[in-house]
Amino acid sequence: MQFEIVTLFPDFFTSALSASLLGKAIDKGIATVNLINPRDFTKDKHRRVDDVPYGGGVGMVMKPEPIFAAVESLPVLPRREVILLTPQGQPMNQPLFKELAANYDQLVLLCGHYEGIDERVMHLVTREVSLGDFVLTGGEIPALALIDGVVRLQPGTVGKAESLDAESFEDGLLDYPHYTRPALFREYAVPDVLRSGNHGEIARWRHQQQLDRTRDRRPDLLDELEVRKGDEEAL
Amino acid sequence: MQFEIVTLFPDFFTSALSASLLGKAIDKGIATVNLINPRDFTKDKHRRVDDVPYGGGVGMVMKPEPIFAAVESLPVLPRREVILLTPQGQPMNQPLFKELAANYDQLVLLCGHYEGIDERVMHLVTREVSLGDFVLTGGEIPALALIDGVVRLQPGTVGKAESLDAESFEDGLLDYPHYTRPALFREYAVPDVLRSGNHGEIARWRHQQQLDRTRDRRPDLLDELEVRKGDEEAL
Repeated sequence: MQFEIVTLFPDFFTSALSASLLGKAIDKGIATVNLINPRDFTKDKHRRVDDVPYGGGVGMVMKPEPIFAAVESLPVLPRREVILLTPQGQPMNQPLFKELAANYDQLVLLCGHYEGIDERVMHLVTREVSLGDFVLTGGEIPALALIDGVVRLQPGTVGKAESLDAESFEDGLLDYPHYTRPALFREYAVPDVLRSGNHGEIARWRHQQQLDRTRDRRPDLLDELEVRKGDEEAL
Repeated sequence: MQFEIVTLFPDFFTSALSASLLGKAIDKGIATVNLINPRDFTKDKHRRVDDVPYGGGVGMVMKPEPIFAAVESLPVLPRREVILLTPQGQPMNQPLFKELAANYDQLVLLCGHYEGIDERVMHLVTREVSLGDFVLTGGEIPALALIDGVVRLQPGTVGKAESLDAESFEDGLLDYPHYTRPALFREYAVPDVLRSGNHGEIARWRHQQQLDRTRDRRPDLLDELEVRKGDEEAL
């Protein structure tokens, strides 16, 4: 998987892309990440990447020309998506990560900044993606989240393939609680069932915990599951 | 605002915390960010921070002792929250950022990793927060998003206070499209209304764009607005 990050702040990414599982995946060649700065594609002597908004208002808007020039300088792999990270996009979720991991060789990620980005950039964009219903200083953190979520689904990033199955959202539910040694830490003990050796009981307990937690914290996820089941039964 | 990031990967944050608006805010003293590694609080010679899960299963679980020791080594400011970044938490959104920005002096951010974190860590935690309904390699990117979203609400981070008002989610709607020079880029022109100089028309056009976009892309946000209005009218 090849990622091209179009960003005014390429330095932002240096340490994040070399630490943790993500850095290891890049070292192993599972993913390639290139950083492209629209400022390097400006033609005026001030290397200007933003300007005042038409129609008035505070803040600056990113100009279209340097972004078009940056994107048009990139190689074009066959299965390619150009994604703008913006709060106006489709919300990032696990099915999106899976779809991107399965169907694309190259993801071009455009990071907005300042008040916004000139709307005409949409002519380059094949998809808009949002990290969530909040405002950040730019698209850099959302780009990092997308890369991390997609790269960890590539074979070889996470140790065992089963690790990917038994986790939050894989079955539409929140994860169950985890415990490790010591069995008694201060006054807090590990639940007996997990030390029982009864695998059937353990599996039932964990599934019940998933249901209880999801009902308690995120009933909206259970509603989605009901809808999905209904759809499947209707087929 | 003082942030304490409890992470096995402190190097992950170096460049992200020094680039962009976030780096400037830290330079100006608007925010302080300390990095604490639970590995520095282990007492065995292998400096072990994870272990196998009770009850079986793949992957490793972060041990409770090094995390307790790391958190208990920190200073305690009066208005303090200890936040675990986990997909099981309350979803991150703009009202949460505002609440944290307004009410706290110190945010301790616990970044999980591996399959999960020993559940007994919840005895330290006052709030669980999720970046979204997806799985990342760890809590580092969610911590970065939370810091960025909260720091940019501090006075002095974003140039003009008005910049904060006229953006996505501030009124429960998506943002309107932005345009800057040139008026004609390739065959794409800026909408005439934005060049009309008629401020009433411009304001109406922008509001209509917000409504249309939100209805088209995120009808769920309009439903929330209706609920909120209903609640206000009922008071």
